[in-house]
Amino acid sequence: MINRGILELKTTAKRLLDSRSLGLLGTRGISNSRILFSPRPTEVNTAAVSESRSVNETPRNPRSPLNPQMSFPCLEKLERRSKKLIEEGPEPVYSKISRKNVEMFHSGEPIFLDYGGFLPEFDIAYECWGNLNEARSNVILIHTGLSASSHAHSTSKNRSKGWWEDFIGPGKYLDTEKYFVVCTNVLGGCYGSTGPMSIDPSTGEKYATTFPVVSVNDMVRAQHRLISQYFGVSKLYCSIGASMGGMQSLAYAYEFTDEVEKVISISGCAKSHPYSIAMRFCQRQVLMTDPKWNKGYYYDSVPPHSGMKLAREIATVTYRSGPEWEQRFGVERADPSSQPALCPDFLIETYLDHAGEKWCLEYDANSLLYISKAMDLFDMSKKIRSQAFNSRIQAEKRFKGENLSVNDLVYKPMESCKFNQPMKENRISRRFSPEEAKEDLVEGMSRIAGKDVLVIGVESDILFPAWQQKEIYELLKEAGRRKGLDTSKLQHVELSQEQSYYGHDTFLLALKDIGEPVKNFLLH
Amino acid sequence: MINRGILELKTTAKRLLDSRSLGLLGTRGISNSRILFSPRPTEVNTAAVSESRSVNETPRNPRSPLNPQMSFPCLEKLERRSKKLIEEGPEPVYSKISRKNVEMFHSGEPIFLDYGGFLPEFDIAYECWGNLNEARSNVILIHTGLSASSHAHSTSKNRSKGWWEDFIGPGKYLDTEKYFVVCTNVLGGCYGSTGPMSIDPSTGEKYATTFPVVSVNDMVRAQHRLISQYFGVSKLYCSIGASMGGMQSLAYAYEFTDEVEKVISISGCAKSHPYSIAMRFCQRQVLMTDPKWNKGYYYDSVPPHSGMKLAREIATVTYRSGPEWEQRFGVERADPSSQPALCPDFLIETYLDHAGEKWCLEYDANSLLYISKAMDLFDMSKKIRSQAFNSRIQAEKRFKGENLSVNDLVYKPMESCKFNQPMKENRISRRFSPEEAKEDLVEGMSRIAGKDVLVIGVESDILFPAWQQKEIYELLKEAGRRKGLDTSKLQHVELSQEQSYYGHDTFLLALKDIGEPVKNFLLH
Repeated sequence: MINRGILELKTTAKRLLDSRSLGLLGTRGISNSRILFSPRPTEVNTAAVSESRSVNETPRNPRSPLNPQMSFPCLEKLERRSKKLIEEGPEPVYSKISRKNVEMFHSGEPIFLDYGGFLPEFDIAYECWGNLNEARSNVILIHTGLSASSHAHSTSKNRSKGWWEDFIGPGKYLDTEKYFVVCTNVLGGCYGSTGPMSIDPSTGEKYATTFPVVSVNDMVRAQHRLISQYFGVSKLYCSIGASMGGMQSLAYAYEFTDEVEKVISISGCAKSHPYSIAMRFCQRQVLMTDPKWNKGYYYDSVPPHSGMKLAREIATVTYRSGPEWEQRFGVERADPSSQPALCPDFLIETYLDHAGEKWCLEYDANSLLYISKAMDLFDMSKKIRSQAFNSRIQAEKRFKGENLSVNDLVYKPMESCKFNQPMKENRISRRFSPEEAKEDLVEGMSRIAGKDVLVIGVESDILFPAWQQKEIYELLKEAGRRKGLDTSKLQHVELSQEQSYYGHDTFLLALKDIGEPVKNFLLH
Repeated sequence: MINRGILELKTTAKRLLDSRSLGLLGTRGISNSRILFSPRPTEVNTAAVSESRSVNETPRNPRSPLNPQMSFPCLEKLERRSKKLIEEGPEPVYSKISRKNVEMFHSGEPIFLDYGGFLPEFDIAYECWGNLNEARSNVILIHTGLSASSHAHSTSKNRSKGWWEDFIGPGKYLDTEKYFVVCTNVLGGCYGSTGPMSIDPSTGEKYATTFPVVSVNDMVRAQHRLISQYFGVSKLYCSIGASMGGMQSLAYAYEFTDEVEKVISISGCAKSHPYSIAMRFCQRQVLMTDPKWNKGYYYDSVPPHSGMKLAREIATVTYRSGPEWEQRFGVERADPSSQPALCPDFLIETYLDHAGEKWCLEYDANSLLYISKAMDLFDMSKKIRSQAFNSRIQAEKRFKGENLSVNDLVYKPMESCKFNQPMKENRISRRFSPEEAKEDLVEGMSRIAGKDVLVIGVESDILFPAWQQKEIYELLKEAGRRKGLDTSKLQHVELSQEQSYYGHDTFLLALKDIGEPVKNFLLH
C-alpha cells in the first residue's frame, strides 16, 4: 500500500504543506480534514491555555493542526468536581458518618504509641452483633482492612449492608447465635474513631499532620481498652481479620497473649514486603503531591479528591488484579470504534476510573496516609517490637513531663537524623541479611507460638502473596518447635487459583472458600 | 505497663489537658515536649498555609500541638525544583540531545498511521555499529523499550556508554565483526525522531497533544523506511528487541514478513495484558493530573517534573520488583533510629525516589504518554490488524483530500462516540470470550508462523509475565501447525528465578543469560 502511488503522495504532501504554511486553508483536502478531524482546535487550545498554571505562556497558533487535538474529559471532570466542591462546600461521605449510627467508646486515659507519640484520650467507634454470654467468653473481635469502617454487618441503627454482611449472622460463618461479634473502626481512621480529623485538645483544632504515627499494634491496644474496660472481657474467643486485619489479629495475640483463645489471620503477613510497601508508597506520594492535600491542612477547603482518586486506582490494581481481570475485561476497549484516548479507554481503565471515582470523597486523605504507613511499618520482628516497647515508655515519660534528651530517644525527630535526603543509589542496601531478618522474625513470633492459629492465604493475591501466609505458619511452627510446644492446632489453608481468582480482595468475595475453614476452626 | 500507674496517668492527663486548654504552656512537661517534639509548629503551619492553593483558609492555631508536626522534605524538594526551573528556564535533558550525536534519516513522504492519523514527513534518529556487507544481508535492527534512545552502544560521535554497551561489539553477543547493527529512536520519541515535541508543519508549533496516536506497528513501518530506502536493505538478518522492543520485533515480521530472516522477542508479548495496561494507565493518569502538564502544552514552561517523577516511581515497581528487592532492600528503613516519615523512609522508598529523581527531566512527558499508550494498544489479533489496515487507507484518503463521513470511519473521533463517560461498574465486561480472543490472536500471528523466531521470557517479570512469552511460542506453533509449516526452528527460552531475579529489566542486567541463547540463535 505504501509503495503504491508514492509519487502521487509526495506531490500531495508538498502541496498540502505549502498551502498550510501559507495559511491557505480553503483547499478541499484541508477543509474536509478540518471538519472531520479538528474539533474546534482554536477553542480547545484556548481552553488549555486558560487552565494553565505555567509561566511564559504563549498563545496557541490559530492555524489548524494536521491531526485533531486530543480531548481530556477525565481531567475536565476533576475540574468540575473541584468547582462544585468550592461552590457547594466540601461534604465528603466520611464527614457525614453519624455517631448515632455506631456505638462509641471513650477512653479518658492516654495511649502511648509505638513510635513515641501519644494521645491523651481517644474514641473508638464500634458495632456488635449477637449476645455476650454470662461467662463473657464468646467474643469474636473482627479487625478491618485499611479502608473499612466498623460496619461489617447491618445493625438496628444502620440497616445498610455491611462489608462482611453475608459472613456474619445467625448460622453464618461467624454465627451470631453462638458468638458476640464486635468490629471497630481503627485508631487513626475516619469513621468515628480518633484520627487525624479529630480535635487535638491542646490546640482545639484538627490534628491533621500533627497526628502521631500509629502502628498496627497501637490499633489493637486501643481496641483492647474497649474489650477489657468496657465489655469486661478478660479473654477473646477469637481475634480475626483479613489484610491489615490479618496483621491486627496477630498483633492482638502478641500484645495480649493470654487474652485470646484463637487467632485467624487471612491474607495478612508477619511483616510487610518491599513490593507492597512500594505500591503503598506510590499511592501516598501521588496523594501528597496533589496541591489540594496541602500538607494535610485541607479540612476547611477542597479535599484532595484528585490525589485520592489516583491513589485508589493504584490500590485497586493491587487488590483485584489477577486472573479475574483476564476473564472479565480481557484487552478490550470500552468503545472499539473510537479513536484511542489517554483518558479511560480500555475496559480495565474504565473499571479503575470507576473505583477511583467511588472512593475519592469516601475516605479521609490523612487517615489513608497514616493507616497505609502503619501497614508498611507492621513487623513482628523482635528488634522492632522491643524498640516499640521502649519508645512507648518514653512517650509515657514525655506525657508525664520527664526530661528526655534527643540522644536518648528510640526514634529521633526527623530533623535531628542523619538521614533526611535520599541516598545515592549504590549506598542503598540492607544492613541485615535475609537470614538474620528471618531469625529476628522467628524470635518475635515466638510470643504467640503454641496458640490456636488459622492462617489463610490466596494464590492469586499479589499484595500479600501466598508465601507470606505460609511464612506465618512456618514461623509459628519453628518458634513452637524451639520452645517445645504442641503446634498441632496450627493450621494453614491456601486457596488455589481455581478456588479464587479475585486476588487480595478474595476475603470480600469468595465467602464460602474463606468461611468454611473459619467455621470449622472456630468449632474445634 | 498500661495498667501500672493508670490512676496517676489519668490525673496527669487531666492536668495536662486543663493547663493546655487554658493556654498555660509554661508547665515543665509541656515545655519539655515542645522543645523536643514540636519543631517550630507555628512556622511549619504558616508555611503550610502560605503554600495552600485552597479556599476558605483559616489561620492555624498558634498553640503547640501535642505531637510534632510531620515534615515533608520530599514535597519541598519538588517546590524547589519548580522554582529553579522558573528562574533558570526549563532545560530538560532530552532537549539537549544534539542531532550531531546521532544520525538522522528524513522521510519526505507521508506516513499513515494505524489509528487514522498521519504525518506528512518525519525524522528517524539512529545509530549504527559494524559494517554493512556487500550483499546488504547482515543487518540486525535493534528495537528499543519505551524510554531508550538509539544510543545502545557508544559511537565515535558519542562516546558515552549505551544502554546495551556490553551486549554489542566485536565478539559480543551482537558481534559487530559479523553484523551491521542499527538502533533507532522510535517514532513518537524525544531523542531525535519525530514526536510530540516536533513541529507540526501546518501550524509551525510543536505537535503537543495534536500529535496523532501511534502504534507499535507504525513505529516499525517508520523504521522500515530507513532500512529499505536509506540503507537499500531488502531483508534484515534479524529483528531483535526487549520489552516494547520485543513487541516491535514481532510487528516488523508482521508488517514485512518476507523482509526479515530471524526474529528475537525478549520479554515481550503478542498483546498487552490487563495488569500491565492498568499499571501504565496509572502512570499516565498521575502525569496528566500534574497541573504543569497542562494538557500537553508545557514546552515553553515548567515541565511536569512532579508527575514524571511519580509516574517513574510506579513504573520502577513494574520494572524491577521481584526477589531482587527482598535480597537488596528487605524491609529496612533508611534510618531506623528516625521517626517514621511519609516522605521516603524505607530503603525501597529511597530507591524509588531516586529512580523518579533521575528520570523526571530525562524524558519528554508527551512522548511518554504516546508511547506508553502504544504499548497498551499493541495487539497482534487479526481483527485489530485488519482495522488498522483499513484505518491507514482512510488516513491516506484524508491526506489526499477525499471526503469521508464520520460513520464510515474505522476509528471515530471521541466526540462522536457513544462512550465518553465511564460505564456503570456492572456494565463493564468483555464482549469476546477468552477463547474467541485467543483464536483471533492465532489468526493474526499466523502471518509470521514458520519463521525463525526466538522468544525469551523471565520468570521474575511481573510486567510481561513469563506466560506471555510462552504464549507467543505456542501461538506460533499452533499457527504453523494449521498452515502445515515446519516450526522446528521456533525456540522458547525461559530464565528461571535462580538465573535472574531482576524482573522485567533482566535484559539490561543479566547480559550473559540473555546473550548466550541470542548468540546461538543468530549462528544457526
